[in-house]
Amino acid sequence: MLLCEIGNTNIHFYKKGANWRKKANIKNISQIEEKFYYINVNEQLKPKLQNLSNAVDLEPFIQIDTAYKGLGIDRIAACKAVDEGVIVDAGSAITVDIMAGGLHLGGYIMPGLFALQECFGSISPKLDMPINPNTPLDLLPQNSLEAISYGAVKPVILMLKESQKDKKLYFTGGDGKFFAKFFDNAIYDGSLIFKGMLNAIQEKGIA
Amino acid sequence: MLLCEIGNTNIHFYKKGANWRKKANIKNISQIEEKFYYINVNEQLKPKLQNLSNAVDLEPFIQIDTAYKGLGIDRIAACKAVDEGVIVDAGSAITVDIMAGGLHLGGYIMPGLFALQECFGSISPKLDMPINPNTPLDLLPQNSLEAISYGAVKPVILMLKESQKDKKLYFTGGDGKFFAKFFDNAIYDGSLIFKGMLNAIQEKGIA
Repeated sequence: MLLCEIGNTNIHFYKKGANWRKKANIKNISQIEEKFYYINVNEQLKPKLQNLSNAVDLEPFIQIDTAYKGLGIDRIAACKAVDEGVIVDAGSAITVDIMAGGLHLGGYIMPGLFALQECFGSISPKLDMPINPNTPLDLLPQNSLEAISYGAVKPVILMLKESQKDKKLYFTGGDGKFFAKFFDNAIYDGSLIFKGMLNAIQEKGIA
Repeated sequence: MLLCEIGNTNIHFYKKGANWRKKANIKNISQIEEKFYYINVNEQLKPKLQNLSNAVDLEPFIQIDTAYKGLGIDRIAACKAVDEGVIVDAGSAITVDIMAGGLHLGGYIMPGLFALQECFGSISPKLDMPINPNTPLDLLPQNSLEAISYGAVKPVILMLKESQKDKKLYFTGGDGKFFAKFFDNAIYDGSLIFKGMLNAIQEKGIA
């Protein structure tokens, strides 16, 4: 069974435990010959996907208990994979969602590291430089590069520590592996969203 | 005695305890008839200022003990006003500097609230909305507006609490008053940079 998570930049594929990605464009969608199950946040590709006879939109079948209005389908799918814990999808944005007893308690959004780097550059040309994610966080910065890197990475870690309490952290997304290493009781799972999609498929008996 | 702090957007003026601001442009510099003492981070206005016979650049006269390379003159001036404490200048960027026993121990930089708002908008059109700084921080967000507002404001507060320990917080800058209200042992002083300039003038006996 082929699963696809379609974003604005990339399409992530999952089949039999393996995952890979391609650029998000119509060609890479049209090329797929077998039946596939997808979630999609890419508005541009939406009409194309709806016209494909081999594509099944999972969005109507993935539900979680939440009071949150407008939760993205990618966040819903990741939450569907975890009954108890803090889910962190660290990509262009860092989304954080709290699950307890199968309920979604809420969540928040911080800019991702690359977005923060662009943000510093927009504030001043003197801050327009690549962040060093490996800057020491236990020493006070002594130059601009250390100062913006510390000011980008450490707030995320403090927020996640505050959210974690005695819960397990589930990291996914491009910077997920990087952030996971700062925590005990944490795992990185690049297939978290797909596991949620599989859970929904099984629950609804639709495959 | 007239003091001016010249930034990229505004010129802040200080005289006899009062402070006010004007747009940062050549006209608002040329209009000044009396002798004035300034610090300047605006590269465009630099040559003009150097040609004025009534303008005294204080930058060479404001020194602090620090190992930090490239500390901006506005941050140096604010530090010159405080021997012991955490100095937070919350403007387009939020700069944080730690002083202990008259020594500058280091500091870091986070994006300001407006820059973060722009940053969210650049990540996704769905996050392109004005941050609500008064969003509750003790409840988990339940929609996108709450999620980005929480994710913008709370990290700053956690970072400052971590930096504060038993020290006093000195807030200045456009959002300084807003952030100060979250802390005990904290003051807002919109004239902090000017106080540092006055300290340097007195120390060097140059006025």
